[in-house]
Amino acid sequence: MIRVAIIGYGYWGPKLARNFAAVEKSTVQWICDDRPEMLRQAAQSHSNAKIATDSRDILRDPDTDAIAIATPPASHYQLAMNALKAGKHVLLEKPMATSSGQAKRLCDEAAKRKQVLMAGHTFVFHPAVQKIRELVRSGELGEIYYYDAVRVNLGIVRNDVDVLWDVAIHDLSIIDRVLPNEPAAVSAHGMSHFSGSQVNTAYLTLLFNSKLIAHIHSNWLAPVKTRRTLVGGSRKMIIFDELEPSEKIKIYDRGVTITEDAESVYKVLYDYRMGDMHSPRIESTEPLRAEVDHFLKCIERGETPISDGHAGLRIIQILEAAERSLRANGRVIKLK
Amino acid sequence: MIRVAIIGYGYWGPKLARNFAAVEKSTVQWICDDRPEMLRQAAQSHSNAKIATDSRDILRDPDTDAIAIATPPASHYQLAMNALKAGKHVLLEKPMATSSGQAKRLCDEAAKRKQVLMAGHTFVFHPAVQKIRELVRSGELGEIYYYDAVRVNLGIVRNDVDVLWDVAIHDLSIIDRVLPNEPAAVSAHGMSHFSGSQVNTAYLTLLFNSKLIAHIHSNWLAPVKTRRTLVGGSRKMIIFDELEPSEKIKIYDRGVTITEDAESVYKVLYDYRMGDMHSPRIESTEPLRAEVDHFLKCIERGETPISDGHAGLRIIQILEAAERSLRANGRVIKLK
Amino acid sequence: MIRVAIIGYGYWGPKLARNFAAVEKSTVQWICDDRPEMLRQAAQSHSNAKIATDSRDILRDPDTDAIAIATPPASHYQLAMNALKAGKHVLLEKPMATSSGQAKRLCDEAAKRKQVLMAGHTFVFHPAVQKIRELVRSGELGEIYYYDAVRVNLGIVRNDVDVLWDVAIHDLSIIDRVLPNEPAAVSAHGMSHFSGSQVNTAYLTLLFNSKLIAHIHSNWLAPVKTRRTLVGGSRKMIIFDELEPSEKIKIYDRGVTITEDAESVYKVLYDYRMGDMHSPRIESTEPLRAEVDHFLKCIERGETPISDGHAGLRIIQILEAAERSLRANGRVIKLK
Amino acid sequence: MIRVAIIGYGYWGPKLARNFAAVEKSTVQWICDDRPEMLRQAAQSHSNAKIATDSRDILRDPDTDAIAIATPPASHYQLAMNALKAGKHVLLEKPMATSSGQAKRLCDEAAKRKQVLMAGHTFVFHPAVQKIRELVRSGELGEIYYYDAVRVNLGIVRNDVDVLWDVAIHDLSIIDRVLPNEPAAVSAHGMSHFSGSQVNTAYLTLLFNSKLIAHIHSNWLAPVKTRRTLVGGSRKMIIFDELEPSEKIKIYDRGVTITEDAESVYKVLYDYRMGDMHSPRIESTEPLRAEVDHFLKCIERGETPISDGHAGLRIIQILEAAERSLRANGRVIKLK
Repeated sequence: MIRVAIIGYGYWGPKLARNFAAVEKSTVQWICDDRPEMLRQAAQSHSNAKIATDSRDILRDPDTDAIAIATPPASHYQLAMNALKAGKHVLLEKPMATSSGQAKRLCDEAAKRKQVLMAGHTFVFHPAVQKIRELVRSGELGEIYYYDAVRVNLGIVRNDVDVLWDVAIHDLSIIDRVLPNEPAAVSAHGMSHFSGSQVNTAYLTLLFNSKLIAHIHSNWLAPVKTRRTLVGGSRKMIIFDELEPSEKIKIYDRGVTITEDAESVYKVLYDYRMGDMHSPRIESTEPLRAEVDHFLKCIERGETPISDGHAGLRIIQILEAAERSLRANGRVIKLK
Repeated sequence: MIRVAIIGYGYWGPKLARNFAAVEKSTVQWICDDRPEMLRQAAQSHSNAKIATDSRDILRDPDTDAIAIATPPASHYQLAMNALKAGKHVLLEKPMATSSGQAKRLCDEAAKRKQVLMAGHTFVFHPAVQKIRELVRSGELGEIYYYDAVRVNLGIVRNDVDVLWDVAIHDLSIIDRVLPNEPAAVSAHGMSHFSGSQVNTAYLTLLFNSKLIAHIHSNWLAPVKTRRTLVGGSRKMIIFDELEPSEKIKIYDRGVTITEDAESVYKVLYDYRMGDMHSPRIESTEPLRAEVDHFLKCIERGETPISDGHAGLRIIQILEAAERSLRANGRVIKLK
Repeated sequence: MIRVAIIGYGYWGPKLARNFAAVEKSTVQWICDDRPEMLRQAAQSHSNAKIATDSRDILRDPDTDAIAIATPPASHYQLAMNALKAGKHVLLEKPMATSSGQAKRLCDEAAKRKQVLMAGHTFVFHPAVQKIRELVRSGELGEIYYYDAVRVNLGIVRNDVDVLWDVAIHDLSIIDRVLPNEPAAVSAHGMSHFSGSQVNTAYLTLLFNSKLIAHIHSNWLAPVKTRRTLVGGSRKMIIFDELEPSEKIKIYDRGVTITEDAESVYKVLYDYRMGDMHSPRIESTEPLRAEVDHFLKCIERGETPISDGHAGLRIIQILEAAERSLRANGRVIKLK
Repeated sequence: MIRVAIIGYGYWGPKLARNFAAVEKSTVQWICDDRPEMLRQAAQSHSNAKIATDSRDILRDPDTDAIAIATPPASHYQLAMNALKAGKHVLLEKPMATSSGQAKRLCDEAAKRKQVLMAGHTFVFHPAVQKIRELVRSGELGEIYYYDAVRVNLGIVRNDVDVLWDVAIHDLSIIDRVLPNEPAAVSAHGMSHFSGSQVNTAYLTLLFNSKLIAHIHSNWLAPVKTRRTLVGGSRKMIIFDELEPSEKIKIYDRGVTITEDAESVYKVLYDYRMGDMHSPRIESTEPLRAEVDHFLKCIERGETPISDGHAGLRIIQILEAAERSLRANGRVIKLK
């Protein structure tokens, strides 16, 4: 039985706790938060868990094996570093840290200690994302031409992070898992419409060492929620609509075939195959459950998670570069 | 009765001819094309029109008052200039020319001769676009924060122009008509996925001397046709979906109200008003009919069209800057 | 060259004329209507056709081979009978007549004279309907459990016929073509909301000598247009949405498998297979073009049309029974 | 503090327990079920509740004030009667009983004892249904012409009740709350596609002593879930789509205006007003929470619930009549 502590019991913490409580191989040992109202709710839902207001009580407990951290981003690094140093395995919400330097140090610490450090890239465990990865990686789509994500929201405008760190991070975690190559450079434009606040509307272009182009539209101020991704390949194309209840993924048998016209080397004719559409059944399992299962399995077997610290680091590197590009009016910023 | 000649009888020419034939105040005098099959069709549908394979026959005809040009873009400038010099009023398909220099010379020639020169910006006459203009200009949306257009297609990949000149030009003509200010600079990223061919997937950001940001996603290789525009304001927001049969425009009473929290000058609380949605009835009139009516009215009254040569010029200037930015890897290019 | 006359140039006549003019093997010889405005439009679009205000002029013309009748239903029978007796082939808009007795006499006359009599069941030529027929008839859907059609409109409320004769007739023509059996009885409920006017909202149930049940919801007073048909089979199910631009037909691999539970003969467990969805590409050809082609082909080869007079008769028999049921408060009326 | 017992902890029981636990004025005292797995889950989620396998333990407990019954329908009557006789207030899932006789006896018992008996018509507490009621009852829709509900599902095929008792019951509870009059008679057609099993596809028509007609399509075997209701009035019309995330209710300003044509008393011209559409913001509160709040408020104040036993009785009377009509091949069955 893996004994887990949850640090941070706001929006995401209760979901983590519910899942760690529901699976056979783990138990919720501690729940930590400094808001009395949150602790009251924690006690009600998890009456067997111990309650803490100071995370150091948890780190000192030799019976705690793993810690899931779901606090605001600014505290991620220090909490995770302390947990690793206390010998605990760590599941760390995204963004893993507020700088790539911090993320790197977390990776190093976890590697040195041979403890599991996993970034909470929940989308990586979404059945639809797994299907897209399979379609892309198997070559069924052909050469990947573009990846276009729109993730716009009428949600909470945050002051601690901008819309890229808050929203685009989801798409970056999917891209990191799905596309065959890592981006080579980024360019971003955006706007903060309120004085003293963070960028709330942003457009991020990812450039690759190939003909692939990826683009993310992130927006906190949209009139309706939209989560729609297009993946265009030379043979097939995908629409992934997270909000579509029964057909989340549609695969279009519509590629482009180029025919060189015999009469002229300068003339290219494009022959569109307008084929059928296929929507595979997507399991309706909760991605967070799969994430929790994966974390526990990695602890048991001493394996590296698919969304390990390095995945978290890669995404933070992109976000840092995007932030620099935003400030430099869209200048292309190379990665690495 | 205004006697009109149609030059170019491919995709758009028949639509122009049909509309000029249908309205009371004009008649189709000539149809010109160099493809026998097209002329056969023209003769069948417009048995009273004269047929020409050489546009000079038309220019020489003193009975022809106006010329509508719907040939490929490369021939626009010369045909339009010849028509203006022959004393004809000109309705010129977009893009008006292949360079801003040419467009400028057409404007000058028309101005000197006091003849009507109108760019075929059909969307300007779309009832939904007129409604959006009204909502934006009246202040009903409040301060405009962003304009986001997605226009993607599974259509014909062209070799003569890129996807911005072919597709984004529609959005630019709407933006030119709707938004209160002209863009100050542009940045564009895109990709040509086929060797020797034009950019087929492009992202164009328009920057303004204000907090407004506009963005256009143009794509020839999408699995399904999409034409969806968001206009976000401080008081209300619009979704314009051209393909939506009964509710093309939805107006959301969802703005953002900023409240300065008394306790801290650094902290901004955002109070979302999640209000009602309203979808005004949009007339289902054909925009091209309104365009043709407007052209004829301007000829009769000696008035300047709302999509005059200068509107066409402004859009070509943006497209030229976008093309430079595309080649310079997204560098911001100032407009004048 | 088959020389065709069009009688009735209101809503549907111009479409017929355009298609007969466009195909190679026919020419529009006459257009007949008694409204001067309609004849003016006919003359403009079909300058080579002769114009008549009295259909007898056409019947007397030995050069006319076939007549397409698109007048109001009340005149169908007499015009068609006269045309058949004058030795002309007839394409007759639906409903073919206002009673099954009339329809029967038309069938007999056409059979006696070995002339083509075709009912204008345009949906029979819709590529999506042909696909559904193929799926149903090949057994791919398994046993057909139900056919459910919703066809509601915000259109013209008519006084000459009720909503079943005007709207449900489309669904009946599809059912006649698609389903493996003819209905055995009908039951209908409906309402006329305006005094002295016809039933404008109706629900029609078709009963079969099997476990199949079909149902049609017809309504002139709906807030939005809907045309949505479900066909449920034991192996697969279809959704046919005529207004869906790119995915008119969706085939769901979701049947029901019944498993007898070993423990109890009274207990039946249903095992749903929740499988994939497939949307085959549907050609975007105009059904009326295919209908016109089929009519001309039948004339040339002396063949019986797939929507012959007997198909028209079967549908009128159902409508008559439905009308009786409506008046008898939904009483089940046997067919035949 | 009102102490509540939950009897039945399958699908709906846990939702009831969660809501009674979450509100201030009640506490979950007992949870009763005879399945060990369900009781294990109950103990985990409600560690302070006592667990029972026999409901008589609860009835004997003088500290229990109210009982919420969420067992299969066959046990509803006896459990509720016992609870009432033990002096408990009762919240009883729908259908309240399996016959109107039983339902009547429950009403009488509750009335005699002045205890609260409430039917679990959750939809009555749905904010969208409350909005529809307001629109209908205020006269804003004008005269109500029709009510058309489609509720089809790919769910569990049940053997204990048919699709009307399982699915149409939701629509009947909405109709009971929303429409100004009670239905006067019903007619139903349906089919059981599996031998020995209940009707799984059904069409139910409700007739009123007015020009109103209501119709419910209930189906367990549909390829996709649909919950769509049209309410047509002489002034406005509503579409209520439960599955629409952001616009559950759309109100169309499209009525029908009848103009008597002066020339003829027989001729009626219909003038459609094709107006705007308005989608009011609907609160996203959980209807079950409002139901629980209402139940507790009625207990505290000794008030009659809006979905009292008589509402439950009326719906069972309609279902009984529908069942008779189903068996009599759609014969119209009068209510009362």
